[in-house]
Parts: sequence; C-alpha cells; structure tokens
Amino acid sequence: MAGTVPLPKGSQPPARIRIERPSPLVDGGRHPVKRTAGEVVRVSATIFRDGHEALRAVVRHRPPGARRAHEHAMRHVDAHIDGDTWAADFAVEDLGRHSVTIEAWLEPFASWRGEVRRKLDAGEPDLRSELSEGAVLLRGAITRTRPAPDRRRLEAALAALEDETLAQAARAAAALQPAVAEVVERFSAREEATELDDPFPLQVDRERARLGAWYELFPRSWGGLQGVTDQLPRLAELGFDVVYLPPIHPIGQTNRKGRNNALVADPGDPGSPWAIGDASGGHDAVHADLGTLEDVARLTARAAQLGMDVALDFAIQCSADHPWLTEHPQWFHRRRDGTLKYAENPPKKYQDIYNVNWQSEDWRALWSELRRIVMHWVDHGVKVFRVDNPHTKPLPFWEWLIAEVHAGHPDVIFLAEAFTRQAMMHTLAKVGFDQSYTYFTWKNGRHELSEYVNLLAHSEMAEVYRPNFFVNTPDILHAYLQDGGPPAFAIRLVLAATLSPTYGIYSGFERFESIPVRPGSEEYLDSEKYQVRQRALDGPLLPLVHSLNQARRAHPALQHLSNVTFLETRNDGLIAFHKRTGEDNVIVVCTLDPRRAQEGACVIGGHLGLPPAFGVHDLVDGSRYQWHLGENFVRLEPGRVAHVLHLQS
Amino acid sequence: MAGTVPLPKGSQPPARIRIERPSPLVDGGRHPVKRTAGEVVRVSATIFRDGHEALRAVVRHRPPGARRAHEHAMRHVDAHIDGDTWAADFAVEDLGRHSVTIEAWLEPFASWRGEVRRKLDAGEPDLRSELSEGAVLLRGAITRTRPAPDRRRLEAALAALEDETLAQAARAAAALQPAVAEVVERFSAREEATELDDPFPLQVDRERARLGAWYELFPRSWGGLQGVTDQLPRLAELGFDVVYLPPIHPIGQTNRKGRNNALVADPGDPGSPWAIGDASGGHDAVHADLGTLEDVARLTARAAQLGMDVALDFAIQCSADHPWLTEHPQWFHRRRDGTLKYAENPPKKYQDIYNVNWQSEDWRALWSELRRIVMHWVDHGVKVFRVDNPHTKPLPFWEWLIAEVHAGHPDVIFLAEAFTRQAMMHTLAKVGFDQSYTYFTWKNGRHELSEYVNLLAHSEMAEVYRPNFFVNTPDILHAYLQDGGPPAFAIRLVLAATLSPTYGIYSGFERFESIPVRPGSEEYLDSEKYQVRQRALDGPLLPLVHSLNQARRAHPALQHLSNVTFLETRNDGLIAFHKRTGEDNVIVVCTLDPRRAQEGACVIGGHLGLPPAFGVHDLVDGSRYQWHLGENFVRLEPGRVAHVLHLQS
Repeated sequence: MAGTVPLPKGSQPPARIRIERPSPLVDGGRHPVKRTAGEVVRVSATIFRDGHEALRAVVRHRPPGARRAHEHAMRHVDAHIDGDTWAADFAVEDLGRHSVTIEAWLEPFASWRGEVRRKLDAGEPDLRSELSEGAVLLRGAITRTRPAPDRRRLEAALAALEDETLAQAARAAAALQPAVAEVVERFSAREEATELDDPFPLQVDRERARLGAWYELFPRSWGGLQGVTDQLPRLAELGFDVVYLPPIHPIGQTNRKGRNNALVADPGDPGSPWAIGDASGGHDAVHADLGTLEDVARLTARAAQLGMDVALDFAIQCSADHPWLTEHPQWFHRRRDGTLKYAENPPKKYQDIYNVNWQSEDWRALWSELRRIVMHWVDHGVKVFRVDNPHTKPLPFWEWLIAEVHAGHPDVIFLAEAFTRQAMMHTLAKVGFDQSYTYFTWKNGRHELSEYVNLLAHSEMAEVYRPNFFVNTPDILHAYLQDGGPPAFAIRLVLAATLSPTYGIYSGFERFESIPVRPGSEEYLDSEKYQVRQRALDGPLLPLVHSLNQARRAHPALQHLSNVTFLETRNDGLIAFHKRTGEDNVIVVCTLDPRRAQEGACVIGGHLGLPPAFGVHDLVDGSRYQWHLGENFVRLEPGRVAHVLHLQS
Repeated sequence: MAGTVPLPKGSQPPARIRIERPSPLVDGGRHPVKRTAGEVVRVSATIFRDGHEALRAVVRHRPPGARRAHEHAMRHVDAHIDGDTWAADFAVEDLGRHSVTIEAWLEPFASWRGEVRRKLDAGEPDLRSELSEGAVLLRGAITRTRPAPDRRRLEAALAALEDETLAQAARAAAALQPAVAEVVERFSAREEATELDDPFPLQVDRERARLGAWYELFPRSWGGLQGVTDQLPRLAELGFDVVYLPPIHPIGQTNRKGRNNALVADPGDPGSPWAIGDASGGHDAVHADLGTLEDVARLTARAAQLGMDVALDFAIQCSADHPWLTEHPQWFHRRRDGTLKYAENPPKKYQDIYNVNWQSEDWRALWSELRRIVMHWVDHGVKVFRVDNPHTKPLPFWEWLIAEVHAGHPDVIFLAEAFTRQAMMHTLAKVGFDQSYTYFTWKNGRHELSEYVNLLAHSEMAEVYRPNFFVNTPDILHAYLQDGGPPAFAIRLVLAATLSPTYGIYSGFERFESIPVRPGSEEYLDSEKYQVRQRALDGPLLPLVHSLNQARRAHPALQHLSNVTFLETRNDGLIAFHKRTGEDNVIVVCTLDPRRAQEGACVIGGHLGLPPAFGVHDLVDGSRYQWHLGENFVRLEPGRVAHVLHLQS
C-alpha cells in the first residue's frame, strides 16, 4: 500500500515551524475581530518547532489600503500552559478592514549563542568547532548587512572570533555581545520562514462604536425634527453622544394601531412609526408632521457641530400602504395559498405591518434597494443606524450590507436590536453589527449581573460583541422599575453607565415613568409608540445623568468593558467592581435594593495590584475616603445608591 | 461607493441556516478527532436561522471506503448557553478515516403545525387561511412520497383537512397527527438545505490504541527473541496486552557507551540499543545476539495467537557505523564548518549517535526509506511502534508517515515518546500519533495528579491525545520510587492502571528496583540500557498487577479516561475518583503516602447520580462495604494502599 499518501510537493521539505492558536481570531478568521481607533491590539500565537533551535516571530499588520505591512516583533511570553506563547502589542488607527498575519523563522545565530553560552557555563574546554561555526554564521550575516556601521560591527566581531592569539572564551565573547546579535537579527536571513496559512481580518471602527451615551426620543413628542434640533445643545451639555429617533417615515393608514396598541385607531391617532410607508412615500421619506429631508440634514449637521451623532431606525417592514407593495409586489411574503400574510409570531399579531420575502426571486433588487435606503440617509448625515429585529432577517444580507456600507463609509455604525438566543446575537455581531442590544434590562440581581457582564467582557464574545446597555426602551419597562421607585432608576442608571462603555436611556426614564399598560406587562401605559406625548428635558434624574456622563468622559477606566473585575461585597444586596485602564482606576459599589439600606464590605484583593492603602474620591458627590487592601465598609441606601470612586494616585 | 462589495452569486439568495461550532472538531477540521472501534460519537453543533421556522438536522457519516453516508437525526438539546445546540450519537466500527458532516434544513410542515397548535391554544376562531396553507404543504408532500401506505396516510389527512363539513379544529387535528408529520418529514423536500462548508475527519482506531497494559523488556536480558517468545504465555496470563522491545538492531562499535553510560566501553560491553547500526545492518536488521528476522515473525505470530501485540522501538538515529552514513552521507547533519555533529543537547552529549538532517536536499529519499523501514516491520507482524523522541523530528514527516501507514494498515499504532512542552505533545497527537507518553511519572501529589488527569480527560486534548501511563521507563526512576519502598510501587501501579486505559511498566518495577546511578539522578544503577541483566517474571508485585489487569478487563469504567471525576477526601494524603461507563461504576481511593497510615473520607456527591446507599466490592482483595452519599470513612496504610471498588447494583 506504500505510496497511497503522496510525498509533499516542492523541492524543500515542508515547513517545520508551527504557528498555532493565533489570537484574536473569530471563527478561524472567517469574521473580523473588532477594535476602535487608538486601541492597542495584542496578537499572540503558540509558536514552536521540533528540536531546540531558536525562533523569532513578528506580527505583520496591514492597515486598509496600505501598500506595505508594518512588522511588530513578538516576544516569548509564558502565560499559556503550552509554554510556547508569543505576543506583540500595537496600536491601530485607520478605520476599516485591517489584515494581520504572523511570520516566524529560525535564527541560527541565536541558537549558536545559546549553545556556546551553555558550553562556556559547563566549562567545556574545546570550542574550536563552535567558533568556526560562529564564523560561518557571521560571514553570512555580513553579506546581508547594508549599513556600513552595522557591517563594521560584525566584521570586528568576526575578526576577534577568528583571532587565534586570543583565548577561546575571549573569541566567543566577542561574538556573544548583544549588539552583534541585534545587527545579525535585524538583517536576518529568516531561515525556514513560515507564515499563517491566511491572514486574518481586524475591523477598526471609530471610538463611538465602543463608547457613547444614547438618548432615545420620539420626535413627534418634541416638536418634530426642528424641535429635536433645538434640544441638541442641552443633550450635549448633559453628556449625551447619540440621539436616537424611532422611524421618521410616513405611517400607514390601513390597520393603523390606536392608543395602547388598540386594534382600531381613533381618528387623529398617529399610529406606530414602525408601520412604515403610505402613499406619500416609504423608507426614504420623512413624515410630513416631523419635517423634511432638509430638516434631517440640518439636524445631523447641528449634531456634528456638537460632536454628536443622530441615529435613525432601520426597520425593514412596511405598512399595507407602502409604495413597495404596489411597485414591487414580488418582494412580499404570501401564504402558500397566495394571500398576503401580515407579520405575526403566534399568538402575537402585527396586523399593521408586512414583512418582505427574502426568498423572493427578485431578491437582488430588494437587497439593492435596501442598500440605497441606507446610503440615502448616510448622504443626509446619518452615521448611526439602530436596526430593528435584525434576527428575523437573513444573516448573509447583513454581512453584505454592512460590508458594503463600511467599504465607502467606515464611520457608519450599525446597532442590532435583537433580543433572541445567544447564538444569533453573537453571530449578528460577527457578521458586522458594530453594537448590540443586550439582556441588561433583565439582569437585576447580583449573580446574574456579574455572570452576564463577565460573559460579555471575558468570553470570546468580547472580540466582536459591543453591548449597548439601555436602561429602558419603548418596549421594555422592567418590573424592577415599575416596583422600585426613583431609587431603582438611579441604580439602573449607575450600573448601565459604569459597566458598559455604551449605554442609553429612553425618554421618560429620567422622570421615573413607571406605569405599565397593564399589570405584568413590560409595555408602557400610553406608550409613545401609539400616541404623541409632550416631552421636555426636565426630569429629576438628569443631574445624576450629567455627573455620570462627566465621569465617563474623564475616566478611561469607564470607557472599556474588558477591564472589569467584580469584587466581593459580603452582601448580595451590594454589587461592586473594579475597572482599570492604564493608570486610571475606578471602583464602583452600588446597592441593588431600592427600598432598604444595605451594609457590607467591598473587598480589595491583592490580585488587583493596588497599593496597600489609597485615597478614593466619589465622582458623583465629591466625598473622599481612605481605602485599603481587604475589607472596606460600605453602607448604601435608597437616597444614595452608589459610590463611583476614583483612586487617587 | 455603492457596488464595492458585490452581491452574492447565484440565482437563489444565500443560505440562511447557520451551522456553527460543529463538534468534535480539531483545529477547524485540519486534524481528525479520534475514537476507537465500537465507541459512540456524539456530534453536535449550534444550528439556527433568522425568524421562527422549524429546522431539522442530520449528521451524515461516511465510513472509510463507503460509497454512501449514513444519516443520524440530530435532536435539539439545550445544554449549551446558546440554546440552539443539536446533537446526534452514533457508533463507529470500521478502522480508518471517516468523514462527518452536518446538514440542516427548513421543515415548513413542522412550522405550520407549531403555528396552528399555538393558534388553537389561543382560541383563534378563523383558521381558514392556515388550513389552506396546510393543504398546500400536504399536497407537496404527497408528490414526494413513494410507498403507497405512507401516501394513503397523507391523502387521508388531506381529505379531512379539506372537508368543509367538519369543524375547523377537527380538520386541523387530522393534519396534526404525529404519524402524518413522521411521513412528511421522512420524505422532506429539505428546503434551504445547508451543509457544513467542509466535512470533518474522524479517525477510528482499534481498541488497543486506547486500551492496554504494556510490559517493556530488553530482549537481551531474557534470552533474545526466542526467550521473549517463551515468556508470552505468562505475560498474557498476567493480563499484559503489549510487550514492548527497545531497539533490536545491530549496535555501533564507534564511541560505544560502557556500563552506566561510561564514555568508553569495556570489551564485551553490549552498548546502547539506541546506537543503531553497524556493518551488518541498520534499522531493518536484527542484532545477531537476539535472533533473526524469522524470530521476529515467530514472536509476533505467537503474540497474535495470545491476543497480544509486540511493540518495536522506532528511533531515527544512527551509530557512526550505520550503513546509511556511507550509503547516504547527504542524510546527515553537518556543522556549518563541514564536520559531522553527534547528537547533543548542551550540556548533555550523545557521542554514540548521529541524527539525520531533515533539511537534506535528498529528503524525499530519506522519508521514503523511513517508510520502508516501518513497512518492513509491519510485514513481520509488528503493529505497534514506540517512536523515540518524535518531538525532535519534523511534524510534517510524522503526519505523512502515519497517514501513509494507516492508509494500508489502519491497525498500526504509533506511540509518541515525547517529554517536552505541552503544545508539541498535543500537536504530535493531532498529526497522527495514536498514543503518547505523559508527565504521569512526575505527578505524585494529589493536586498535581488530579489537575493533570483533568487536563487529559476533560480539555480539548481529550479528542486526540491518548495517554500511556508508564510507571517507570529505562530513563525514569522517579525519586518517589527511590525513596518510598514497595508501597510506593504499589501506589503508582494502582494509579496508572486505574486512571489510564493504557498503562505500562518497565521490567524491574515489579521487583521494586529503586537504586539510581547516583543521588539525584532518575537513571537506574547498572541500567539495562548499557548492560545485559538476567531477568525473570517473578517479582513480588505481579499478583497485584494480575488483579488490576483482571479488574481492567472486567470493568468498562476502567477502560476509559473521560469518565473520571475526582472526589473530595478530606485529606490530601488520599486521592479518590469515580469512573462510570454505562451501568458500570468504579470508585478508586488510593493513599499517596508510602510510609504512614492515612485516614479520611471519600465524599460521594449527589452530582454523581449514585443511589443514597450502595454496596461496594473491592476488586483487589474481595472485601465488601456499605457506602452512601456523603462521607465514607477510609483508612489506608503502606500494607494496603488502595481500594478499587466496584459498585454493586
């Protein structure tokens, strides 16, 4: 049976160096790992070869559009159980898709140095053979070394190495100088150079993809688009970075929903903005009551002046009156008996909206039209899209659409509003969504909160999934808020703003709105989804919002998620965590009980690397304390729900 | 910038079903996962799709050489955090490389059933649209259904469904019958069928690759090959499955090592068998003192009659007198100054052996010759090779050689004798080694033992790396044995034989040989590596060997590794573990202290799924006890080092 498995091809034997477990890699390189501009990337791998030869390795990193790659030397780090881990750190700046690979090679001169050093240490009397081997290596290096000073250094070492008037140890020492090794390795022949089979992708987004405070509002409750534009300076002053508007398009008349989701609308009821489209236009139009396309451009321009973004909703669904239903009937889902089917998820029914049929034979035109819609809003200054229910649309569509938009506009950000099983939420992030809604609203206990945040911060999800911790949404008024009164709102606000680099509140939260449409429901009574409310920025929680947003801006530790370590509190009614970025250390202790005082101790363990004693400064109320390693007594109560402590250096 | 990322090709939109995290997969399918004949394989994946349609999935499994794949229905299991995990179990039998893939598809009839059932539950009054949709689905199914009885069943359901004289609920019920669904799904149209991008490999080896008791002996101490053949019945009776012989080839004269590794041999010193080759022959020859090629064939034939294997050493190195040095000088490593370099790992020197140069321009001829050597011994009945120091030879060579030998002889087993960093040991297993030496000899404490066994049993290594727990080797006489006296030997024997499905002892262990060549060394005094000893199978530990081998054969629980759970003992001087395979439960409690009695409690936790109280039977000494959940008092002492307890059902 000999000869069944052919010998490898090529005149050289196959590469002997292995580069395994390259990191960070998502699904073997199928999807890009994500970073934001200015962040440092650590690339590591397990690199080894049979035998005992010295290896060297670099990360080769090519920014988008760059002709040449940058090389970053990897160093041998031993954290990994394998004992063969190498790593390099480097910063990324340019937005877009970077390409990363790893190259490793043999460095025989380094092997030679190690061998000669061990023999000198062992008192080996005869090094003649080693010295002549060293001379061969140095001669080779000299031929590769262009700069004259470097070449002269090697020539001097070679001359000493071959000077038989010197003792063997002195001859060896001349060639063992670190400066000689530095030159030899700088002009290395890179023997047996081996690269990863394929480079892997790295997506660099602007900082807003990771970091920002969002405010969600229905423009019809604020005087339309002009009214929203008028609020921007105040929102900026409060520290908000993104103002997010539910759909601003014309709303269908057919089967329009009434107040509190009534099946039949009363005359004058405005309908749900998610029932998109009427005779006047669809996804590329502006509802006449809100303003015009020009108002959108004015709003986004004013926001840009203030360093803010305007986020629009992208909801791929139509009212019965949407122009697509007549212009492109083939795009819509029909039952197998031929009748048009409204959206439903039994027993829930959405009689006012129709979903598109992704399996349509005309799918290419549909995809292209959806791209056109997004680009239309990008052209009007919109750089952030909150995508409605992306998990009910095909993943390949999102992967294509987002790559396509990013190719020309790497500053556009897509937020996935998906509440579904973990695999789909994770995969939406892999295929390109820059940010994601989360389960945060439903995590109110200490254990479930820390478990969930640890999953987001410390599992493989951390490489792709950027959470946006909304404290409420028009669809989610959690029982914790319904029952807990104002302290519950403060608690949830502190947790969202300090745990997650991106968080958001939906208008009304700051006024402690807490009445559900009926007991047991997470829907608001008199929800803005179905009616116009009069809104203003005057809620009693806004001072705390302002303090927290200031703290977030001043403290890098609050601008990241993967730097979080939960701390013991000796009381499950208190949650505490430490975050460190560079020299910036923040410790947050927050009660989870909106009704009673809770006492406990925040335990500072030695593994945090903090000094034995240190001063802390509360970023919310300015108070100061002395803390130390071990237990620090903490008492929190409904009137004062948290400490957000900056460590004084 | 629109159009930068082209729309996907094809008239159909891209597949919407995702099959992610297929398992068990090694390095994304680059290397096969390993099983032995008769084992059950569990294949799982995270399978999902946008929306709410019902999915179905199968594992498609093709044994080596089979024309058609077998399908195994996957079921939805919810253990995984993602909540979208599917799995199927199936047994493998044929030796060789199997191919596995997963296919998933939409089952609209199942979606329809779910939707109709939810609407019936919700009391929905009008199901006309749903009923007509069901009729369309049933008509489609009927056209795909060949067997007349099945077709008639569908036709009957369709007739009822369309019978407007019946109530809607009754019409629905006719189509909701499980038997109807079973037929529809058996003849499914498999809409949107999606497969893994690539099938992944699964290597099925014979049971011996996983399970066996090894005995290592130097044939020159037993009267040569005929002497070994004479011992086979006794070895078989003792329960050994493999007799392993260090190299049996001619031994070089040049720089031959003397007794106790002396640099200069005395006349009559036999030399190290690992210094392979002299004028009479090399790796394909038999040392004249041991016998002939015919003796090898007789030995392997007798072993086969007894159900045993003979393992030969495969050590790719040569004495200075090996024929290859003159016939193929280009295969040998020379220093850069042109001189031939003997093997060394400073400060260690192996002056009697030369390594081959894997970078030789003539590498193809070298690889082919090494394959010829292995096949030569396979042709003489050798089916197991213990490979010396594979980690100092190129991984691509091993990958090719083992695949090549397995292609024609899937029953051949390669054992890697590598003691090096974890990444290399793991990778040797990935590229094809069926078994591996381990760090077991150096793990003598409770924590380090359980940590190491958990790594082998429960990490990703478990899919590829099969440990062979040698209690000693000609190179490793651990200080624990040097210092602990006979109880130390019994302890290590019990641990090796009960923890690992494959274990081995090197001749002399059963006689408590424990004197090192010098203090602090792990080398034996008067090692058989450099001199002939007179050996016989009469050591005082053999009765315990026999008992343990009997227990291993009788109890499936002792034939696997991944079934191990360590138990609390309330005393670090005692180690305890539970193993379960099917209905077979074994609990082992072993002292780690060869000098003093140790008392403690073996804690049976509820998670083991054992009854509240149960009888146990000691497989070594026949004693019986009553055990129960919670703490069970245990006292072990140097005269009785372990309980190997079988749970009575």
